[in-house]
Amino acid sequence: MTKRPSGRACDEGRAISIETGFARHAEGSALIRVGGTEVLCTASLENRVPPFLRNKGQGWITAEYGMLPRATHQRGNREASKGKQSGRTQEIQRLIARSLRACVNLKKLGERTITLDCDVLNADGGTRCASITGAWVALSMALKKASLSSVMTAQIAAVSCGLTSAGAVLDLDYVEDSAAQADTNFVLTAEGGIVEIQGTAETSPFQETEFFELLRLAKLGTAPLFKAQTSALETL
Amino acid sequence: MTKRPSGRACDEGRAISIETGFARHAEGSALIRVGGTEVLCTASLENRVPPFLRNKGQGWITAEYGMLPRATHQRGNREASKGKQSGRTQEIQRLIARSLRACVNLKKLGERTITLDCDVLNADGGTRCASITGAWVALSMALKKASLSSVMTAQIAAVSCGLTSAGAVLDLDYVEDSAAQADTNFVLTAEGGIVEIQGTAETSPFQETEFFELLRLAKLGTAPLFKAQTSALETL
Amino acid sequence: MTKRPSGRACDEGRAISIETGFARHAEGSALIRVGGTEVLCTASLENRVPPFLRNKGQGWITAEYGMLPRATHQRGNREASKGKQSGRTQEIQRLIARSLRACVNLKKLGERTITLDCDVLNADGGTRCASITGAWVALSMALKKASLSSVMTAQIAAVSCGLTSAGAVLDLDYVEDSAAQADTNFVLTAEGGIVEIQGTAETSPFQETEFFELLRLAKLGTAPLFKAQTSALETL
Amino acid sequence: MTKRPSGRACDEGRAISIETGFARHAEGSALIRVGGTEVLCTASLENRVPPFLRNKGQGWITAEYGMLPRATHQRGNREASKGKQSGRTQEIQRLIARSLRACVNLKKLGERTITLDCDVLNADGGTRCASITGAWVALSMALKKASLSSVMTAQIAAVSCGLTSAGAVLDLDYVEDSAAQADTNFVLTAEGGIVEIQGTAETSPFQETEFFELLRLAKLGTAPLFKAQTSALETL
Amino acid sequence: MTKRPSGRACDEGRAISIETGFARHAEGSALIRVGGTEVLCTASLENRVPPFLRNKGQGWITAEYGMLPRATHQRGNREASKGKQSGRTQEIQRLIARSLRACVNLKKLGERTITLDCDVLNADGGTRCASITGAWVALSMALKKASLSSVMTAQIAAVSCGLTSAGAVLDLDYVEDSAAQADTNFVLTAEGGIVEIQGTAETSPFQETEFFELLRLAKLGTAPLFKAQTSALETL
Amino acid sequence: MTKRPSGRACDEGRAISIETGFARHAEGSALIRVGGTEVLCTASLENRVPPFLRNKGQGWITAEYGMLPRATHQRGNREASKGKQSGRTQEIQRLIARSLRACVNLKKLGERTITLDCDVLNADGGTRCASITGAWVALSMALKKASLSSVMTAQIAAVSCGLTSAGAVLDLDYVEDSAAQADTNFVLTAEGGIVEIQGTAETSPFQETEFFELLRLAKLGTAPLFKAQTSALETL
Repeated sequence: MTKRPSGRACDEGRAISIETGFARHAEGSALIRVGGTEVLCTASLENRVPPFLRNKGQGWITAEYGMLPRATHQRGNREASKGKQSGRTQEIQRLIARSLRACVNLKKLGERTITLDCDVLNADGGTRCASITGAWVALSMALKKASLSSVMTAQIAAVSCGLTSAGAVLDLDYVEDSAAQADTNFVLTAEGGIVEIQGTAETSPFQETEFFELLRLAKLGTAPLFKAQTSALETL
Repeated sequence: MTKRPSGRACDEGRAISIETGFARHAEGSALIRVGGTEVLCTASLENRVPPFLRNKGQGWITAEYGMLPRATHQRGNREASKGKQSGRTQEIQRLIARSLRACVNLKKLGERTITLDCDVLNADGGTRCASITGAWVALSMALKKASLSSVMTAQIAAVSCGLTSAGAVLDLDYVEDSAAQADTNFVLTAEGGIVEIQGTAETSPFQETEFFELLRLAKLGTAPLFKAQTSALETL
Repeated sequence: MTKRPSGRACDEGRAISIETGFARHAEGSALIRVGGTEVLCTASLENRVPPFLRNKGQGWITAEYGMLPRATHQRGNREASKGKQSGRTQEIQRLIARSLRACVNLKKLGERTITLDCDVLNADGGTRCASITGAWVALSMALKKASLSSVMTAQIAAVSCGLTSAGAVLDLDYVEDSAAQADTNFVLTAEGGIVEIQGTAETSPFQETEFFELLRLAKLGTAPLFKAQTSALETL
Repeated sequence: MTKRPSGRACDEGRAISIETGFARHAEGSALIRVGGTEVLCTASLENRVPPFLRNKGQGWITAEYGMLPRATHQRGNREASKGKQSGRTQEIQRLIARSLRACVNLKKLGERTITLDCDVLNADGGTRCASITGAWVALSMALKKASLSSVMTAQIAAVSCGLTSAGAVLDLDYVEDSAAQADTNFVLTAEGGIVEIQGTAETSPFQETEFFELLRLAKLGTAPLFKAQTSALETL
Repeated sequence: MTKRPSGRACDEGRAISIETGFARHAEGSALIRVGGTEVLCTASLENRVPPFLRNKGQGWITAEYGMLPRATHQRGNREASKGKQSGRTQEIQRLIARSLRACVNLKKLGERTITLDCDVLNADGGTRCASITGAWVALSMALKKASLSSVMTAQIAAVSCGLTSAGAVLDLDYVEDSAAQADTNFVLTAEGGIVEIQGTAETSPFQETEFFELLRLAKLGTAPLFKAQTSALETL
Repeated sequence: MTKRPSGRACDEGRAISIETGFARHAEGSALIRVGGTEVLCTASLENRVPPFLRNKGQGWITAEYGMLPRATHQRGNREASKGKQSGRTQEIQRLIARSLRACVNLKKLGERTITLDCDVLNADGGTRCASITGAWVALSMALKKASLSSVMTAQIAAVSCGLTSAGAVLDLDYVEDSAAQADTNFVLTAEGGIVEIQGTAETSPFQETEFFELLRLAKLGTAPLFKAQTSALETL
């Protein structure tokens, strides 16, 4: 076993900060930093529903994800200029939307749509997890502002864990992520429930026991995220 | 607890059949039927690699997924005519490609690309899992034909399990899938390793113990799939 | 004069089979095989008309054509992934739609739209003709199911004839088609009427008398197609 | 039988004029007027071939067709702004290109590409036929300028004939075209050879004898077109 | 200081002609020639407004610009076939639309939309300016025909002036434009008001006094344009 | 005359701050705030040139502009998801690129490309001007890092001035911009040279003297911008 590139212990996550109100026009917004990863999450509330939900007496939560072209080491192509979102982008924004829908009572939300925009300003691994954790704060803030806090049914946060040359580790940064044998994103509730699990063996299959260890780390790792979310909202 | 709509036992999968050679021009092909779901999987081998892999001395496995417009109860829009693939399509074809890459030694494959096309002719739930199970057969056939069988490092198959009003059940059909509380797709190796796990809580978070029960069912459910794959290839 | 590559006589068509009901969800479906060409045709009936026909008291027949990426010797690009349908695809689906519209009384159809999807599973020349012949069966089946058989005004089938090194020949396969001097697609009614003629001189212009010979062959060649259509529908 | 809306005799074509050199930068150009239809055809010669012809020692002829948004009674959408060419546009430009390729010896042309752009300035029926007739002039002019006249193997022109309430008529204008029972576009050589036939029954199938009458009219109708082409080129 | 390539004096514009009615179906049309630049401008009047203006009791003026592929020395790609309008095209059509909106009382126009299509048939510099000058004529003609002349609040015309090796010059042609140090497009009213100024330093910044000289030339240069517009409309 | 909505004097600009290094991976970056407008500008340096400049011994400066969906009062559509950049976006990014190219010696830059990405995080009017001012800082930083400072030929900054109900005013915010009679964007050099002028009469033409007043204000308004740029770079 080697040491982690960052020198962190296997069960040690990165520094977290969440700043609300960065986007001045949005009903809710959170600028979340997890280590070197920085995502601006906004929640936009509109009094309409998409066509497939018209007259069904329920609301909708959707999400869009983007990465500024120079959030990464090499400049990436701007998706607006290429004319389409990559498969990776679509996979991620579908994950964010599903996760957040799982913690809202859509019936009680009524005929409203909340769009969560997660834009990565700086990327250093774990952008989809940071997006989910930050989006939950932006969503809470928007619901609070609209006196709809009661439609929220759970508090959720996300973290990635993986199998690396340092063993099973919590909260992979970019360097670790690029070389991991396996990588799993966990979206968990504060009560310990599972909302989403996305596990991928990159180089070779992993075993059940390894998977259980990743799940254990994820539970450990989401605790400070829940705390940071709660603190960020307290100041409102 | 209610009975399953199909009358199946909770740990009972659907009838499986795999027919090789349906696509006469492809290096490998498998027409897989899992209950009412029917997917034509082809493997196309080309002596080139995508630009990002040029001169790296390794090969690539990629996948594309499609659904015939009338594979479903309601006719769906043809993606070619809409001018773009949906997020769902992209999410699925990325899953198929990742899963199959995880069972091939890309270095030993050399500068070759294998494209797995999975086209759904009839849909009744579980199309992404059937695609993966069938694609493995098409891939094996193409590798065999090119005397490259040794680059395959694992046998994989996929199945979905979910929490429904009948409890934790194996191999959801469309009716069950639409109403499930949670749904997880498992891609497993014949040796019991985990290649991919995609678990989603649709209506409410699920518990660790529930998740373990789904994993147990998945192991049970992939056994007959591995058998069907092996039989299909024996006749070649 | 040389022999045909397939050894067929100049006025000899290929083996034909038509299987209804392959697509389980469609109102009508026909899997047609003409030699090595195999096309899945489905008819989808919807109680709406396109915007340009609203409140005009008539219905509409439209068609979409596709080819699975590996229906051919070399894998073709998936049009959904390229983001647009080729000119060839559009030309063919317009031909299919015009042909089928010519055998339906759109006024009597009422405010309904029938979409004919023709997807080529295996290609060996003549895919547009097989699509038209098969689509007529799928359409008939859908109309029958909706008790609308009386809106059908003609039975149509299509075949290609061409000038090759073996002279004027009936029902070109891929090898003949690639090298033909001229190639004409005929869409004819069972009563001998002409619905569409698409004749193209590939390498040098052709003469009136040659064209008449192609038309004679086409009439000969559609006879077994009409018989196969009728048989396929009798079993319903 | 009624009279033709224009008062023309059944075998009477419209006034024709062809003006060369309208597009000052093009290697060849013809502004062709057939009645109220006006098309600007240009030929652009480039010393390169498309990728699929590289190092094959032959040239290529291609074509693009467009209609100015207000060439018609109602303003049509600009295809550049919609982001795609309609199926009709693609069908027409494929026809133009095939027709012109049929009268050039591509081997003798050498590794050159000639692009024929046909842009409709005013539309009153028969725009695809006028495009082909005009494009032949533009192409001849460009070949002459490049001392390549010998690669031209035939003189071609196109005309549409149809079955209307006035019987079989030559050179349909917009009013006739909209109401025709059947409509056929003929591309013929000056020697009477057939290059393309595109016949369509709009409302009911037509008979062999009717088709022969249309072909007879087409031969009659192309004679003045060939004369106008020859005159236009003489002045160069 | 050198002489201008065309031999024109610094304050000498090019020959101007404006022909109305070229597009027979349009409510208004002007074929404008400024030296070797030739643009067909049409005005299409429709009794509807775009969605964002519904029920606001006002009208709208919009514009689209295009260049025939062979209007230039080298054939340009057809934007319809590339699937998108270039940034240059969009910049120009926005300028045309803004300029023409500035001379119409949109409230008095009522719930109508006028679309100005400016299609360049031959290009030799100054196509955006010729488009604006010609579009004003087409617009005037369409308004007159609809008895709406009173909604026009100003007469506008446009000209480009620039700093070249011959000093500050009026009405740049293509050769001058390509090598200019700075280039400014002026849209002015007949009363001397400024509607749009678009000044660009191509190779090095320019000074205030140079800018004033360009403005002086522009006023001089628009005088004959206003005269030509007025003459063109008198004949209606 | 009324007071400005913000209470500012007519010749009073907004508070300015420029923070370098916000984007950790970029060769140069500046987060610029002008009042409530906030733009993240990054400069990415690559050792390649676009195809049209290959082997010409010079470099290139290009720019892309974007606005986060919720940078504005109402959420705007994400351009990546719509599949194309708006005309406004393209107009702005062309302006940014032209302006920055005008202050770099492209020959001396050598075969390198610098891409300036300007992404608006919060919008309150003047985003294109803030983008240019910030992009100059990002560009300077990237050039310095690559020891290429000598290729910079001028310092530029941009400001908008307009005619409002409070008269001619400097540095319009969103409220003023929406209601202005005329609006001009000035890109000026520190030596007082003019790089770009984009003046638009929104509701009625403006006079020469009014324009001169706007230019006077622009010179006044760019002074603190030049100071802020210089300070921001000093700390590097």
